[in-house]
Amino acid sequence: MKSKLQPPMIIINFKTYLEATGKKAVELAKQAEKASKETGIYIAVAPQFVDIKAVAEAVEIPVFAQHIDPIKPGSNTGHVLAEAVQQTGAVGTLINHSERQMKLADIDAVIKIAKEHNLISCVCTSNPPISAAVAYLTPDIISIEPPELIGTGVAVSTEQPEAVTNTIKLVRKVNNEAVILCGAGISHGEDVKVALKLGTQGVLVASAIVKAKDPYTIIREFADATKTH
Amino acid sequence: MKSKLQPPMIIINFKTYLEATGKKAVELAKQAEKASKETGIYIAVAPQFVDIKAVAEAVEIPVFAQHIDPIKPGSNTGHVLAEAVQQTGAVGTLINHSERQMKLADIDAVIKIAKEHNLISCVCTSNPPISAAVAYLTPDIISIEPPELIGTGVAVSTEQPEAVTNTIKLVRKVNNEAVILCGAGISHGEDVKVALKLGTQGVLVASAIVKAKDPYTIIREFADATKTH
Amino acid sequence: MKSKLQPPMIIINFKTYLEATGKKAVELAKQAEKASKETGIYIAVAPQFVDIKAVAEAVEIPVFAQHIDPIKPGSNTGHVLAEAVQQTGAVGTLINHSERQMKLADIDAVIKIAKEHNLISCVCTSNPPISAAVAYLTPDIISIEPPELIGTGVAVSTEQPEAVTNTIKLVRKVNNEAVILCGAGISHGEDVKVALKLGTQGVLVASAIVKAKDPYTIIREFADATKTH
Amino acid sequence: MKSKLQPPMIIINFKTYLEATGKKAVELAKQAEKASKETGIYIAVAPQFVDIKAVAEAVEIPVFAQHIDPIKPGSNTGHVLAEAVQQTGAVGTLINHSERQMKLADIDAVIKIAKEHNLISCVCTSNPPISAAVAYLTPDIISIEPPELIGTGVAVSTEQPEAVTNTIKLVRKVNNEAVILCGAGISHGEDVKVALKLGTQGVLVASAIVKAKDPYTIIREFADATKTH
Repeated sequence: MKSKLQPPMIIINFKTYLEATGKKAVELAKQAEKASKETGIYIAVAPQFVDIKAVAEAVEIPVFAQHIDPIKPGSNTGHVLAEAVQQTGAVGTLINHSERQMKLADIDAVIKIAKEHNLISCVCTSNPPISAAVAYLTPDIISIEPPELIGTGVAVSTEQPEAVTNTIKLVRKVNNEAVILCGAGISHGEDVKVALKLGTQGVLVASAIVKAKDPYTIIREFADATKTH
Repeated sequence: MKSKLQPPMIIINFKTYLEATGKKAVELAKQAEKASKETGIYIAVAPQFVDIKAVAEAVEIPVFAQHIDPIKPGSNTGHVLAEAVQQTGAVGTLINHSERQMKLADIDAVIKIAKEHNLISCVCTSNPPISAAVAYLTPDIISIEPPELIGTGVAVSTEQPEAVTNTIKLVRKVNNEAVILCGAGISHGEDVKVALKLGTQGVLVASAIVKAKDPYTIIREFADATKTH
Repeated sequence: MKSKLQPPMIIINFKTYLEATGKKAVELAKQAEKASKETGIYIAVAPQFVDIKAVAEAVEIPVFAQHIDPIKPGSNTGHVLAEAVQQTGAVGTLINHSERQMKLADIDAVIKIAKEHNLISCVCTSNPPISAAVAYLTPDIISIEPPELIGTGVAVSTEQPEAVTNTIKLVRKVNNEAVILCGAGISHGEDVKVALKLGTQGVLVASAIVKAKDPYTIIREFADATKTH
Repeated sequence: MKSKLQPPMIIINFKTYLEATGKKAVELAKQAEKASKETGIYIAVAPQFVDIKAVAEAVEIPVFAQHIDPIKPGSNTGHVLAEAVQQTGAVGTLINHSERQMKLADIDAVIKIAKEHNLISCVCTSNPPISAAVAYLTPDIISIEPPELIGTGVAVSTEQPEAVTNTIKLVRKVNNEAVILCGAGISHGEDVKVALKLGTQGVLVASAIVKAKDPYTIIREFADATKTH
């Protein structure tokens, strides 16, 4: 149930912010759940590995890992196994975030591993041709995030609208099914609206929510912007 | 309480074995706890990241992470933050396991980060000079594991006793405090006894226990061998 | 002149074989040049970084680097700069060989850097979808090399013909210009013929030539097979 | 002959600066040679991989690689083989420069490989304990370079004298033979003098020389400062 994608959607990346670590990860996920229930918008959260299970047990909204490794069960000390992530109750994973980039063959391998384990694969990309390249590997979600805008508060949707529209155009040539998100610098409901107007199906956000004084208000603002679009 | 090292000791590395994933990680940790309580021997377990919290909540024996990253809180998607590990109830971490090797400067950084967060640092090394090199960085535990013996069932203590004794000799020239363990191929109580006789203060083990039909029996065998030494 | 691609073609990867190091790299390149002149077939050689200049000065056939880094001039100790490679007389570079894999964003960056410096970009890929993904990044050459066949003497063209034909089919949907090669296990003229018959425009080879008792004979055999196709 | 270390000494790291690429690498090496001959001071140069051979053929002063990989001859496309470096006429190599850091076990492996091939090993380190750690691996040269000062023009010798003296003190406890250099921010003859006064046996420099309008003048200034110390 949890695992069915229902765009338009919002994914909140908790990164390794202290404001979204441990108990605070659970609290933040609950605020996302509240906003999701109130608005009906699909909101997923991506906490740190060690927090996934507690978050997945505390909320009914979808929980993603921030990364999984291209490995099978066995001798892989310190790596992240898809089976282990799945058993925590997570339903998906980010892949190739600009802060955790992977080799091309590994992106392909992890998308396949995710499929085998019914995990939603959300691959992050940095420009339109790379997005189109990834589209060929058939992930469930492609999220374009120009790395130079991450954490700046300058939204990709308003600053680089052509990056977003070109991504959509190139991806759709080869892949009609992947959900297309955008991220980087998304700070206001208006940024979300512009992102959706450009043709995306939602946003991947982090600091604007995680580091907000009142995260619920911002999540709700984003969800409302998504809804009224 | 949990965090005080009491050698002789045994650390069980769960790696990414399915036999030690999710609920099975908790079960295995409970068997280790049983053996520890019965024998009084310090036994720690190192489950996968996503399982640390559930394991730490289920048992009173010390729980280690298998790795942490040389990062501070912030924008580090997909990385392992010391603060997050600590908040799960873990008391230490493996560092530089041969399956998760790190750059030299990162080993140094993670040992310092571990100290700042009251996490026990257990650095894995592959030969005596490298062990001595690491000794200078003052980790709490140094565990020598010749990579060519890992998973073979051929014990480092019987196959390469001189690697073990040379490690102890070289390490002690510069560091009198670090606990010295050995690992790789440890399969029988006898291997543990030999390891202790050579001067180590315990063992780091994985497959011999995790993949055993009856892990408790093996853990108990190892703990008894440690005790009667 | 040197830099114009003229398929069908053969690229010989010298890897780090001693048989193709230093003076032996120059000798081997001369044998490739002889076969190229005699048959009219485009044969390029890819020696180690330190040998590129001597090889490029000794022969008139095209010389490729085995890798370049996604960097600009500056503080990059120990890295491979496109400008430096170009100044040696090399005309192209391998990218993302299975023994030197790169992050997706870095493959994209190096293809662009190669274009800026008039270097032919030859990206190695491991399966058809990855080949198609790379096609979107518009390299000059795409060479499919299933890693499990590299160095086996079992030719990709005879063992995995569908990998080759699927690659061609998928790549051509998005890219009509890239030269498509295949590699891995190519050992006999017959393997080359099959590769061409499947629709490739040549082969990327290594051990079959470099480790041959009489490399010239094998190069000539491959060139003849390419010609009579 | 070339390979005998004669401290006090200066190593000039060409990095990937355009001012030290191709023909300019040879020219710069000649200016270093001129200063070396005039002053009798041991001055080595470390050009990019592709330039090593031309530089080594053009000058009589020692030439270093900027990095070698922990590999043996064979299937290692895009890697740097010690044997190949040696055959160019290079006599040594930098290892673990802060811009090309290595795993601990790889540093150990490369130091051994360098010894086997009569190449001088110069390991770069970032702080005193790491320097002492490396000392146990018995490289020929240890060069401490606090990364935060690299390229700043603020000299390690004047800014962090205690980092230099602590390095010497810690290294000498375990290793009496390694030559100890310092680097990072060395810009003036005075910085060199201070470095030698603190007890080092020379400096590892880059931008101050490579990016100088008149590199010879600066090299000569450094060599004179080394001599009159």
